[in-house]
Amino acid sequence: MFAKKIITIALLVSGFAAKTQSTSSLNLLPTPRNVELQPGSFILTENFNVAIHEAAGDTILVKALNRMYQTLNRRSGLYFKQRYISSKNNSDTASLQVTVDKSVPPLPGVDESYSLSITNNRVNLKAPTTLGALHGLETILQLLTKNKNGEFFFPVIAIQDAPRFSWRGLMIDVSRHFIPVDVLKRNIDAMAAVKMNVLHLHLTDNEGFRVESKTFPQLQNKGSNGDYYTQAQIKELISFAEGRGIIIVPEFDMPGHTKSWFAGYPQLASTPGPYEPGPPIDFHSVKQMDLSSIMQLVNNAPFPAIDPTKESTYEFINKFIAEMSSLFSSPFIHIGADENNGVAWKNNPSIVAFMKAHNIANTHALQAYFVERVNKIVAKHHKQMIGWEELFSKNLAKDVTVQVWQNAAYTKQALDNGNPVLISKGFYLDLFMPAYVHHNNPDLPAALPGENTRQLRGGEAAQWAEVADRTNIETRMWPRAAAIAEKLWSDTLNNDADDLYRRLFVLSEQLDESGLQHVANYEIALRRYTNDDVGSLKTLTDVLTPVKGYKKLFAQLMMPESMSYQTAPLVQVSDIVFVDSKVKWKFRAAVKSYLEHKDIASENILRNYLNLWQKNNDQLKDLFVTSPQLKRVEEHSKNLSVIATIGLEAIDKLKSGTADSNWINEKLSVLKNTNQVYGETELSVIPEIETLVRQQMTPLPAAYSIF
Amino acid sequence: MFAKKIITIALLVSGFAAKTQSTSSLNLLPTPRNVELQPGSFILTENFNVAIHEAAGDTILVKALNRMYQTLNRRSGLYFKQRYISSKNNSDTASLQVTVDKSVPPLPGVDESYSLSITNNRVNLKAPTTLGALHGLETILQLLTKNKNGEFFFPVIAIQDAPRFSWRGLMIDVSRHFIPVDVLKRNIDAMAAVKMNVLHLHLTDNEGFRVESKTFPQLQNKGSNGDYYTQAQIKELISFAEGRGIIIVPEFDMPGHTKSWFAGYPQLASTPGPYEPGPPIDFHSVKQMDLSSIMQLVNNAPFPAIDPTKESTYEFINKFIAEMSSLFSSPFIHIGADENNGVAWKNNPSIVAFMKAHNIANTHALQAYFVERVNKIVAKHHKQMIGWEELFSKNLAKDVTVQVWQNAAYTKQALDNGNPVLISKGFYLDLFMPAYVHHNNPDLPAALPGENTRQLRGGEAAQWAEVADRTNIETRMWPRAAAIAEKLWSDTLNNDADDLYRRLFVLSEQLDESGLQHVANYEIALRRYTNDDVGSLKTLTDVLTPVKGYKKLFAQLMMPESMSYQTAPLVQVSDIVFVDSKVKWKFRAAVKSYLEHKDIASENILRNYLNLWQKNNDQLKDLFVTSPQLKRVEEHSKNLSVIATIGLEAIDKLKSGTADSNWINEKLSVLKNTNQVYGETELSVIPEIETLVRQQMTPLPAAYSIF
Repeated sequence: MFAKKIITIALLVSGFAAKTQSTSSLNLLPTPRNVELQPGSFILTENFNVAIHEAAGDTILVKALNRMYQTLNRRSGLYFKQRYISSKNNSDTASLQVTVDKSVPPLPGVDESYSLSITNNRVNLKAPTTLGALHGLETILQLLTKNKNGEFFFPVIAIQDAPRFSWRGLMIDVSRHFIPVDVLKRNIDAMAAVKMNVLHLHLTDNEGFRVESKTFPQLQNKGSNGDYYTQAQIKELISFAEGRGIIIVPEFDMPGHTKSWFAGYPQLASTPGPYEPGPPIDFHSVKQMDLSSIMQLVNNAPFPAIDPTKESTYEFINKFIAEMSSLFSSPFIHIGADENNGVAWKNNPSIVAFMKAHNIANTHALQAYFVERVNKIVAKHHKQMIGWEELFSKNLAKDVTVQVWQNAAYTKQALDNGNPVLISKGFYLDLFMPAYVHHNNPDLPAALPGENTRQLRGGEAAQWAEVADRTNIETRMWPRAAAIAEKLWSDTLNNDADDLYRRLFVLSEQLDESGLQHVANYEIALRRYTNDDVGSLKTLTDVLTPVKGYKKLFAQLMMPESMSYQTAPLVQVSDIVFVDSKVKWKFRAAVKSYLEHKDIASENILRNYLNLWQKNNDQLKDLFVTSPQLKRVEEHSKNLSVIATIGLEAIDKLKSGTADSNWINEKLSVLKNTNQVYGETELSVIPEIETLVRQQMTPLPAAYSIF
Repeated sequence: MFAKKIITIALLVSGFAAKTQSTSSLNLLPTPRNVELQPGSFILTENFNVAIHEAAGDTILVKALNRMYQTLNRRSGLYFKQRYISSKNNSDTASLQVTVDKSVPPLPGVDESYSLSITNNRVNLKAPTTLGALHGLETILQLLTKNKNGEFFFPVIAIQDAPRFSWRGLMIDVSRHFIPVDVLKRNIDAMAAVKMNVLHLHLTDNEGFRVESKTFPQLQNKGSNGDYYTQAQIKELISFAEGRGIIIVPEFDMPGHTKSWFAGYPQLASTPGPYEPGPPIDFHSVKQMDLSSIMQLVNNAPFPAIDPTKESTYEFINKFIAEMSSLFSSPFIHIGADENNGVAWKNNPSIVAFMKAHNIANTHALQAYFVERVNKIVAKHHKQMIGWEELFSKNLAKDVTVQVWQNAAYTKQALDNGNPVLISKGFYLDLFMPAYVHHNNPDLPAALPGENTRQLRGGEAAQWAEVADRTNIETRMWPRAAAIAEKLWSDTLNNDADDLYRRLFVLSEQLDESGLQHVANYEIALRRYTNDDVGSLKTLTDVLTPVKGYKKLFAQLMMPESMSYQTAPLVQVSDIVFVDSKVKWKFRAAVKSYLEHKDIASENILRNYLNLWQKNNDQLKDLFVTSPQLKRVEEHSKNLSVIATIGLEAIDKLKSGTADSNWINEKLSVLKNTNQVYGETELSVIPEIETLVRQQMTPLPAAYSIF
């Protein structure tokens, strides 16, 4: 119901197009709906102070305002005279005036709009609700800039902003690898910075049951290695997220992905136990992880699944959902319902007999029966159900939300059927795709063509955690998730990848400064290899990226048994390098500028990088001897030297106009040979060297294969 | 009572001296009691596995063993075949055999000894208790080394180890700046790595009341800015620490340092309110922060203090201590009792009348009366009381522990009186003293001269937090705290500073790898200045250290009001640089080696540094313009270039034998002029350049002034 309202607002104001031509100096991410940038600036001094005009007792707002104020204080180093901001501070002469009509806790669908007006002596933030104000505070932080004299300022500007979608989520799989509360908190802060509003926790899967049940304590005791969230931690996390305008939606994946449940409660399973948490099948039974082997596996392996034919199953689920409904304040509960191929059901004669007896034609219909039963339970406990696309059937209750992850046909079917829809297809962060690919995601409908898209609530970035743990999950997700946040927030997207990356890397520094550990964890991982100065190693790893698609996951699964288990260390180079190389994009910007202007400044940037890369392999020889992880990417190091030499030659040729087609073809052939995967990583700057050789920009692929 | 036992053990075995001559290749910190290093090594492979032989159900041990195993797995990158270690794994052929006689939770005084024997095919760890085994696991981790082929190994070795003192603590002030739970957890892991066993939390002070009371909720609600530990968080923290062999001792500082208590409960105060949390007095009333002004202030200012004459005070304290005694499992409660000068009491006529009526001669006697009343309350709730040295009086109950922080005379007096003693004098980390100064702390009695030292329980490193917050407290404390941990653990200390620093910086890398954020926070702070590559800036800040003693604190207090409040950002260079410069010690080692051997390897190290430093100021010019924080240390940057030039000249003179006394005196005079404090930082490598000029090692000062 609330989805209607926000979409109506979106339609009403869609006439305002963001004035991108005048705002290319701004670092706003996501781009606001309407921005009017004017000359002039508001200079910050130690007298910068804040007044609040609000419904009394909006503690979420007051706390957020103090956090924002201290971040400004820390970034600017100005030592503001105002110490704390309380709701008593309402002087009309304060520098920043914050006016909020209504105090509300976070909930998708609530009015999240705000307007921000900055003159050279006043900042005015107005919002109908707390949530809009929180977003406005993040925009203020993103507007802070330093001028050449070291003064911090805001530009004179007027912004009217509201999100396109009411549901802008991030899903984190905390089952395959447990992610501690402090890491989640840092991610919540990062989500708030880019105006996301739903943290979806994939709390249970075959590999681990990660939330404390007091009703069924063997769920976490036998279903995990001891790593799970206590109920006290969950409450604290919900409260922390609420303070950032974010709700936490719990997922309890069923009827498949349930091996960890069966460790303590084997009576729930379709197949006799005993069970222990772990991968659903032995992946080493497959000889080769190619597409056909995988499809064969997905279709035919007897993945563990709950028995949907026993009444005791629903009694269990009822008690469990009752407990979780009271623990989680979110009005939504996600029940997964993905990737159940029905094989375990077909293998059980009593389930087959039940199907016959009840005229259930096939296992898909049996799953629909299960989903319907569970939905009644969820509804009884006053929650709305969400599931992955496989939960969809024509008879699905209209208030159940369908989350599309693989098959875009479900988007249309579910919308036609009247169900709310969330899009995660094209937003899988664990596929190691560049940010611009997510930003252009074709699976999120670009326009609002008709009535049935009213239920298109938004979408979620998704981070599965087979090859992510607490030591690297931040480098896996950030800053890329911000591109998805923008895709879900902004009506009119500027699809210029250069501009996206310009803003993304500024944001990345801000997230670093605010406490996210994505940069720190990368550098800690580098120090693990060297025990000292990481200089030359970083020169190499700064231009390496993980191989795109499922290749990294499959490599992990196909490794000797010892390498694919949950506690296996994630210390390969492919586990630690960023998916988007900042150096690649800086180099690319210089290449572009140089081709356009032939300017000495760009040439110097290019030559500095190329000279560094050319000599770098010599510095690393000793390290390769002592580190098997680094040894796996040694070819990239050699190739970096090779392509740097080509790049330097290309600049010389370009200046002297002596690049003939023979030379070009020869070099392109060399470059093609260097374009290989070693140690599940790719050398990211080959297209830019190719550009120098060709003397024209190599276009970015719109997408990459996921296999 | 338990102190007796451990000291007896110490006396019995003190005949074994650590064989330091043969162990200089080891990186053990603290140094074990007895080490026999032999030729050979145990090479780690993916088959490395573990068996446990223990009293059933030692979950602390099993979890610690799994953590240690995964750390080895991550450091070595070997992908061990064993996934989890459970108490069912007790095969006699496993690589690591862990045998523990008795399962015990942490408690100072319990037997913490262990013996470790490593042959070329077996590691044997034996301990009478869980606590000894935990220490042994840390020793195993510290023994892991990589050879030149990249293989990880343990040396063949036999170790017998036990601590000199039963109480090896770290006190963290979480009141002046609140330190979140996740930061405390990282510190607990670091403490465990160096075998510390007590985390003393200074939970309350004028500036903030940091623990939730359900009995008196206005303590945290009005007594803090909203930053406090909930009781659920405290329970979780205690359990986390227990798993690392560490107890948490809470401090509720009274009767002084109580302004935050009075915000919610002004009836407790000696002076009418209203109150709010904050500094006890206005430090800006003092014109100059010199020693005599400070003493005047300390003696004469009316610092807020609890009224010790009302029965209602003790009713309040009784209820409060009852609640906290049940929340904190530690058998100890610290009541502070420091720095109450009695002025607030003397100013209150009814308190003066009470003293007359009860023949209480002076405010010191009144404090003794208060302490005695509170001790009865603490004892009633089955806890042992601890307080800072000012709580001592001749009539103090014999089971009350005295923590000496300022006046060494209290050590003798308290021991003579029969009271247990903890030493913190000489262990104040917030005085920014180099690690070697703490390591040589003369205030911890070196030997065990007589009977009355039986009660010398040990000591505590102390980190007060006026100028430390969550963003920099790890860089303030680590790795220095490890030097204190060693001082408290090891019987026979090797006081060679070079050897200490060699081990300290190896440990620092291990702590970094394990998740402590001391290195990461330094680098995040550097990126805050530059928003990008920190290369040249880091070259400068790597050799800067905070000014020693209270000068940094006083500078902060004397700054304009806005700079000294609790939420003031700690973003000055002096807030972020390490107290011990790793580069300084690497440079110093090369200087020493070069003077001794005149070798080309050392000369190259020196020249590389000196050339880098000589040119570095040129790289930083733009940054100084845009950052007022960096601007404050610009003179150091210029001086670094100046002294680097002198260093290069000195090497040339040394090689050509042309350094005459005129040249030497001239250069020493220049060096003396560069030896200044800018922006509360010092340039740390001046003594090493002086050494090159003099051609002889400049001895390290044994101590530095604290004012």
